Amino acid sequence: MENFFRLLKQDKKSKAMIGEIKTPHGVILTPAFVPVGSQATVKSLTPQDLEEIGVQVFFANTYHLYLRPGVKIVKKMGGLHQFMNWNRPLMTDSGGFQVFSLGRSDLVKIDYNGVSFRSHLDGSRHYFTPEKSIEIQQDLGADMMVAFDECPPYPATYEYAKMAMQKTHRWASRSLATKKRKDQFLFGVIQGSTFEALRKESAEFISSQMFDGLAIGGVAVGESKKEMVQVLDWVMPVLQKQKVKRLIHLLGVGEIDDVFSAVERGVDMMDCVMPTRLGRMGWILIKEKVKDFKDDITKEEFVGDRRPLDPACQCFVCQNFSRAYLNHLFRAKELLAYRLATYHNLYFMEQLFAKIREAIKKDKFFDFKKTWLG
Amino acid sequence: MENFFRLLKQDKKSKAMIGEIKTPHGVILTPAFVPVGSQATVKSLTPQDLEEIGVQVFFANTYHLYLRPGVKIVKKMGGLHQFMNWNRPLMTDSGGFQVFSLGRSDLVKIDYNGVSFRSHLDGSRHYFTPEKSIEIQQDLGADMMVAFDECPPYPATYEYAKMAMQKTHRWASRSLATKKRKDQFLFGVIQGSTFEALRKESAEFISSQMFDGLAIGGVAVGESKKEMVQVLDWVMPVLQKQKVKRLIHLLGVGEIDDVFSAVERGVDMMDCVMPTRLGRMGWILIKEKVKDFKDDITKEEFVGDRRPLDPACQCFVCQNFSRAYLNHLFRAKELLAYRLATYHNLYFMEQLFAKIREAIKKDKFFDFKKTWLG
Repeated sequence: MENFFRLLKQDKKSKAMIGEIKTPHGVILTPAFVPVGSQATVKSLTPQDLEEIGVQVFFANTYHLYLRPGVKIVKKMGGLHQFMNWNRPLMTDSGGFQVFSLGRSDLVKIDYNGVSFRSHLDGSRHYFTPEKSIEIQQDLGADMMVAFDECPPYPATYEYAKMAMQKTHRWASRSLATKKRKDQFLFGVIQGSTFEALRKESAEFISSQMFDGLAIGGVAVGESKKEMVQVLDWVMPVLQKQKVKRLIHLLGVGEIDDVFSAVERGVDMMDCVMPTRLGRMGWILIKEKVKDFKDDITKEEFVGDRRPLDPACQCFVCQNFSRAYLNHLFRAKELLAYRLATYHNLYFMEQLFAKIREAIKKDKFFDFKKTWLG
Repeated sequence: MENFFRLLKQDKKSKAMIGEIKTPHGVILTPAFVPVGSQATVKSLTPQDLEEIGVQVFFANTYHLYLRPGVKIVKKMGGLHQFMNWNRPLMTDSGGFQVFSLGRSDLVKIDYNGVSFRSHLDGSRHYFTPEKSIEIQQDLGADMMVAFDECPPYPATYEYAKMAMQKTHRWASRSLATKKRKDQFLFGVIQGSTFEALRKESAEFISSQMFDGLAIGGVAVGESKKEMVQVLDWVMPVLQKQKVKRLIHLLGVGEIDDVFSAVERGVDMMDCVMPTRLGRMGWILIKEKVKDFKDDITKEEFVGDRRPLDPACQCFVCQNFSRAYLNHLFRAKELLAYRLATYHNLYFMEQLFAKIREAIKKDKFFDFKKTWLG
């Protein structure tokens, strides 16, 4: 367990806090947003774009990269950073989530040792164990890795959720034992579905292990926002009673209201496909009075609209292009549409997190939250 | 007829020459390559990318923009330049070529006044005349426009080619009569298919009209390279005997060997979808000993290849990414693949033209050609 995370300041009125993660590829300020770049690319953008946007770190998917181009190739190329020419911090997941959700379900077989699954690309059969997941992540050269876990579906029965949690705990110890390098940081994953006893037990167990960081899993699999917050309210106090403050990552969460709920409760980092996936569908993040801070740029009302996507935004896209142009590009299914929308949405998220950090610095997290959520 | 083109220097040993086009949106050095950006976007790239690549001018398609977003919208947005935030010269075609090739053929009706066609988008019926084509191009705000012509299919009978040529000539005069502004330059189009008498007659007629520039059409519709060169050998001497040297554009041509054939014979400018379309298919332009100066980056041999796309290239893509990474992006069908390949291929073309201009300046066009074609 390495102390790669440092608490800088806690908000006086909430559990929100700012901190600093030191990795071999640079520093990440928290609370941090972690965009997803599954296949060694944040879809449509270059690493140079990501730097310009202010992206501090992104999440690559072990499952995808293991299948294509394959770990051997990435390793031969000097690791993921060199392969894609990204010189900032990088996080990988364990592959577990994709194995369960992408693998054709009748062909996924879970035993106590690991998971057997078929590739969604060519149907070939593969077997992941905690050891294999960590070895792959080490070969990819991630700065931050995630222990192999079983994320139960939602809703799950208590019995199933308990069994998956127990497996996750056993696998957590094996993941930890496989970790070799001191400068690759490993997160243990807390499971337990929507059951208070399980969540608390999982939080106790995972935080008792020598993980560098703690991740909360299984909260973006179909449960309601209320249930997500409930899980945080069960788990966070357990993690917060630990003597040494450790980095807390919330897996798969990132809608605007969820960001505030999580940060308020002490979450330091979260990853989500939302801004990039929505962008490619023509949904633009915007701080106007629109539902969920997003609007569909392909709508008729944006034909000929001279304004930038978000009049309050300073990003490259908003400084150079109009809603009318984006509307046209999306309607014409032009490649540039996906790129510009992705760029703006990520910039929007990075700005939101920068402002959240600023607010915490001034002990004004709640005031800031109010300007967004009322 | 405006003298917007100025001859700077002719190569001593060939008809190749360098010149300068002055438009309201800046200067174009010739010989110039004109990439295609059909729908107000060179697919996957921003105007900023195009500037960085050194693109001097690009070709937008009147047919596409007329149907979507529609001329009214573009005009309302201040013209095509403002609509897409491109501040350099812009050329539009007449719409004729697309009407004939994209319109469902049984639904295209050509009469002596114009062409009736159905939209490939929604089947709606439209009617283009020379007047309408020029009005649209004026509304789009192009710096350079093309007269409405009939491009006969290949192969064409002598009778059909003659009829299409005669129509093209009649429409040429009507296009010219419709042109209003002095700073929007109009090109007449020479047709005549693969028939010497017709090509010469067309060259005589079109060059006798007060067009700002002269375009050679119907040479990229299926004929062989030999036939293309033959057409140039018939047409160019006619155009070159004119007292005042006028800009000569070759429509739809741009493979590497064709570029040399055309420049050698005195062509100043040519447009082609080749570098962008090939790029999106994974074909990378490269000055190594590969057939036609292109290679398929998706091939097995490029898996794990650490070299840049073209080891001789200084572009952003070649300076930052490997063949292995591009190979992966294409195989994974990642959006970034199309963008990076397009960027490199356009840079490759712009560099080729810059070097051609340099060679002409030193009276070394043939020497330079030999280093490429042997």
